[in-house]
Amino acid sequence: MIRYALAASAVCLACPALAQDLSTGTWIDLTHTLNEEAVFWPTAEMFEQETVAEGETEGGYYYSAYKFSASEHGGTHLDAPIHFAEGGDSADEVPIERLIGPAFVIDVTAQAAEDVDYRVTAADIEAFEAEHGEIPEGAIVLLNTGRAGLYPDREQYMGTAARGADAVADLHFPGLGEDGAALLVERGIGAVGLDTPSIDYGQSTDFAAHVELMTNGIPAFENVADMSALPPTGAFVVALPVKMEGGSGGPLRIVAHLPE
Amino acid sequence: MIRYALAASAVCLACPALAQDLSTGTWIDLTHTLNEEAVFWPTAEMFEQETVAEGETEGGYYYSAYKFSASEHGGTHLDAPIHFAEGGDSADEVPIERLIGPAFVIDVTAQAAEDVDYRVTAADIEAFEAEHGEIPEGAIVLLNTGRAGLYPDREQYMGTAARGADAVADLHFPGLGEDGAALLVERGIGAVGLDTPSIDYGQSTDFAAHVELMTNGIPAFENVADMSALPPTGAFVVALPVKMEGGSGGPLRIVAHLPE
Repeated sequence: MIRYALAASAVCLACPALAQDLSTGTWIDLTHTLNEEAVFWPTAEMFEQETVAEGETEGGYYYSAYKFSASEHGGTHLDAPIHFAEGGDSADEVPIERLIGPAFVIDVTAQAAEDVDYRVTAADIEAFEAEHGEIPEGAIVLLNTGRAGLYPDREQYMGTAARGADAVADLHFPGLGEDGAALLVERGIGAVGLDTPSIDYGQSTDFAAHVELMTNGIPAFENVADMSALPPTGAFVVALPVKMEGGSGGPLRIVAHLPE
Repeated sequence: MIRYALAASAVCLACPALAQDLSTGTWIDLTHTLNEEAVFWPTAEMFEQETVAEGETEGGYYYSAYKFSASEHGGTHLDAPIHFAEGGDSADEVPIERLIGPAFVIDVTAQAAEDVDYRVTAADIEAFEAEHGEIPEGAIVLLNTGRAGLYPDREQYMGTAARGADAVADLHFPGLGEDGAALLVERGIGAVGLDTPSIDYGQSTDFAAHVELMTNGIPAFENVADMSALPPTGAFVVALPVKMEGGSGGPLRIVAHLPE
């Protein structure tokens, strides 16, 4: 395969990522496999799969097919703006340009290891920017809390394996704080994702990050898989949700390209 | 935004597409919206969506959520190799590198307009190659039958709106012929897609194209949306299916990048 090198530039920190060359490098899958163990909110119906056909047919060829059902918000999935913003974009309406872009990966594993209820702050984001440059418009911001490896053990990953409305009070996992969400809105990012069940921390009752992001048209990716292979900048994300009409979210396949 | 131009090359027809620069150009969505009108095989359960919540909450914020169910093979979707090949890759196992690559768009609208039961031949593919160069390993081959605009009118699009096993004999739409499939296998393509309900034509009973492709590990994309905006070469496809464990296929979001 013939390879081209891109010209480097000293004038723009984000540009090497924007001008990604897909002819070299590697793709990383940031998606948990969707199965009956997939993590859903305690009140939401889980994923179910049923066999329709499986085996040799009378025609002499092998054939298998299945059907499935789920609520929208489980496994690695999209929260479309309409999930928390009346009249916001639904899953089919989110512009694909929002879901494709250079990745800015903010490592908060130390903070989350100290405090399971940690909320990523504007100061955390500014500290990242001091080192890596200002997060540009259209960026895909990924918050690495270091907890993807606990998935799908619900007790470990979200604080409780119990199901039903009473279990919600026992949810514990890190999320994005309201001032952090407001700063990302100010930056005009494309989308934000993290490796916990919700962009708001487990103990949230006002869902302030959801509301702040989604009333400003910014979708979230939840239950993103292990992002430890990604550099702080330089990767390129493509995150494509099922195009469900009117959906408030749904299964998401999210991949990242690493330049060589 | 600072833009880089890629060096052109006279020695490799496919390379301009392989070295796609994502900092410029446009993205095109090749995915039909998934809703209760979505086209499924007459024997397969259709997509259903149910409202779980919708409206203002006691907490003062808006909240909506839905659940859904479907069989795997409807709307714009993936056929994973295990659909027709025992032991083949399932939806979660298909390497993402197979689903991402330069697009080679073969226009068979004239043939399909003449004959609704048309099967794309090896000769059609060779005629394309005579003009545009040999289809390289890892290519995403898209067959444009010109019929995406008939979707989701099942009568027009697939020959019958009837449901159930008896309707299968009335299916009429173009597909890929067995010798065409064999040539694509020989080329080592990544995947093949088209704008009809099945990679085999509607009247098929032996599903020869499915078997030929899938026993060789090649997945198919079916019910792809209108691809008339794509040039024969030079676009770049990213096709990401839901990562369903053991799935024989499932909803697919397929997008294409057009260079400037």
